[in-house]
Amino acid sequence: MRPVVWAQDRARLIDQTLLPTREVWVECTTPQEMARAIKSMQVRGAPAIGISAAYGMALAALQGAQLPADELKASLEEARQILAASRPTAVNLFWALEEMAKVWQRLDESAEIVPALVERALEIAREDEEMCRQIGAHGAQLVPAGSRILTHCNAGALATGDYGTALGVVRAAHAQGKVSLVWVDETRPFLQGARLTAWELLQEGIPARLICDNMAGHFMQRGQIDLAVVGADRITNKGDVANKIGTYTVATLCKAHQIPFYVAAPYSTIDTSLQDGSQIPIEERAAQELTVLNGQRLAPEGIEVANPAFDVTPSNLVTAIITERGVFYPPFDFSKVLGS
Amino acid sequence: MRPVVWAQDRARLIDQTLLPTREVWVECTTPQEMARAIKSMQVRGAPAIGISAAYGMALAALQGAQLPADELKASLEEARQILAASRPTAVNLFWALEEMAKVWQRLDESAEIVPALVERALEIAREDEEMCRQIGAHGAQLVPAGSRILTHCNAGALATGDYGTALGVVRAAHAQGKVSLVWVDETRPFLQGARLTAWELLQEGIPARLICDNMAGHFMQRGQIDLAVVGADRITNKGDVANKIGTYTVATLCKAHQIPFYVAAPYSTIDTSLQDGSQIPIEERAAQELTVLNGQRLAPEGIEVANPAFDVTPSNLVTAIITERGVFYPPFDFSKVLGS
Repeated sequence: MRPVVWAQDRARLIDQTLLPTREVWVECTTPQEMARAIKSMQVRGAPAIGISAAYGMALAALQGAQLPADELKASLEEARQILAASRPTAVNLFWALEEMAKVWQRLDESAEIVPALVERALEIAREDEEMCRQIGAHGAQLVPAGSRILTHCNAGALATGDYGTALGVVRAAHAQGKVSLVWVDETRPFLQGARLTAWELLQEGIPARLICDNMAGHFMQRGQIDLAVVGADRITNKGDVANKIGTYTVATLCKAHQIPFYVAAPYSTIDTSLQDGSQIPIEERAAQELTVLNGQRLAPEGIEVANPAFDVTPSNLVTAIITERGVFYPPFDFSKVLGS
Repeated sequence: MRPVVWAQDRARLIDQTLLPTREVWVECTTPQEMARAIKSMQVRGAPAIGISAAYGMALAALQGAQLPADELKASLEEARQILAASRPTAVNLFWALEEMAKVWQRLDESAEIVPALVERALEIAREDEEMCRQIGAHGAQLVPAGSRILTHCNAGALATGDYGTALGVVRAAHAQGKVSLVWVDETRPFLQGARLTAWELLQEGIPARLICDNMAGHFMQRGQIDLAVVGADRITNKGDVANKIGTYTVATLCKAHQIPFYVAAPYSTIDTSLQDGSQIPIEERAAQELTVLNGQRLAPEGIEVANPAFDVTPSNLVTAIITERGVFYPPFDFSKVLGS
């Protein structure tokens, strides 16, 4: 299940705002269209956003293919700004844009730059899928037989190039026959769990049970959850984890119930330039995401709303961070990891 | 704001499933209609359910007013069974039915029984409102100036005879100028916070901010919540508290952040026959409450769902229990309270 695919001269993405009731593929032919798709969350999930941004740059290259190299590079810089402004929290977005910039910065001819950018974007997508499979393989070793696993939001195939990060761990563990049940937090306000994770798991035949975010604690209290695994949008050098709002609550509940709390993410999610989570910018999204659903009002007109899209889980609540390079345990200090 | 009112020979209640977008009053003229209103949550909140059940018995009495006393009593018993089966968790329901039963059990003439039951039901409603004001007065003493208070679900006027329990504390503290902000958990799946608490607080001009249930932890982490106050559906002798699903998570988060967690409820909510929370029956409600909202599907067809309506907060997470008789601190042992 690849949520974003490249088709010769355009990117196609499954509109995740319409799942699970409708499966509609959207075409993007310009970086502006791609930035809008990211901003409106038609595509979401940190790795998928990174891939989409790379495709956005490939689209910008195709648009400017006839320009002289200096003008092409100027328009690529402009596209990069537009894409960088689409979502503030996911580090993969900036990482992918930087990877793309390295390509055009080392080339001097438009005729070279354009195919090289398309190729690099495709490579980023392929690498991401491969990383997810490695994350899954590493993570599955942490899952005991018969596990009942809680996940929050969607860190699945839909959030990545394919296969997923947190759901990559679930997929790999399920392939080994070790998953008894996946508890799916619905994940308000955007309902990525109810709409996307539930849909992915149903499609794969992995046993899943949907709950409201406020129910996980109850089932932990009753001994019905063995471990939690979530994705990440950004991880600091010391292992603080920015992820979908509600993740911090899951981690706090896990700690209170002595349940392992795992974070699964590509190594590129780790931003060694940040020491702790307070430095991570947290996106505040529109009030309407809480007060209106499918065009119908849920809350009275005039009520004030807070809608942070992410929260930060401090490293002391994290049992381990699962990456394609292996599993890391606290105390974390990623700047000392070889090859960082 | 009385959610249930008696009008000569019928009960009128504001349909809480339609708030805040529509204010529709429903009339009940039979105990069956009242039981349906309770079951469908047109009226909800433990004290309001108790009052409604009492009115349901008054309606049964009026229906059977022409019967000889023994037949009237038989039909009252039948009505009592119907009403008792409407919701399983709220002890106030059973308490109110028991109060009504005491009335007809000590009388021998239909002509006496009928007006006495109507009068007792009205009295239960009046007493409840008075209790709420006393709960508010006691609770307000625990609220420091400038407080930012978190509440979950709706333990407001809409859940009681009037004034509210948890929101009674908020109202009384606000009247003393001590409330800087009320954080309102939206309270999935039924959205009592978004629909009812937000509406009540807006109507009263009390500053309120709506959040998803999974956001409270984030704002506690940031030091923006000073205390939490919630209602209760049933409290055991040792102080374990059954309340709306998600309450346990709020309490766990409060403990992790050293924030006071208060429970406000009429003393009748305390069921001294139960020692601990594991004895409290937890209602499991329909999957559709999670998967469908206002007729629109949120989750894929075929996904398994868990939907417990309540959870149990163990007494070690409870800072104090606020009742009309005063404030109780742990260790709780209500069987030793005089006059229980």
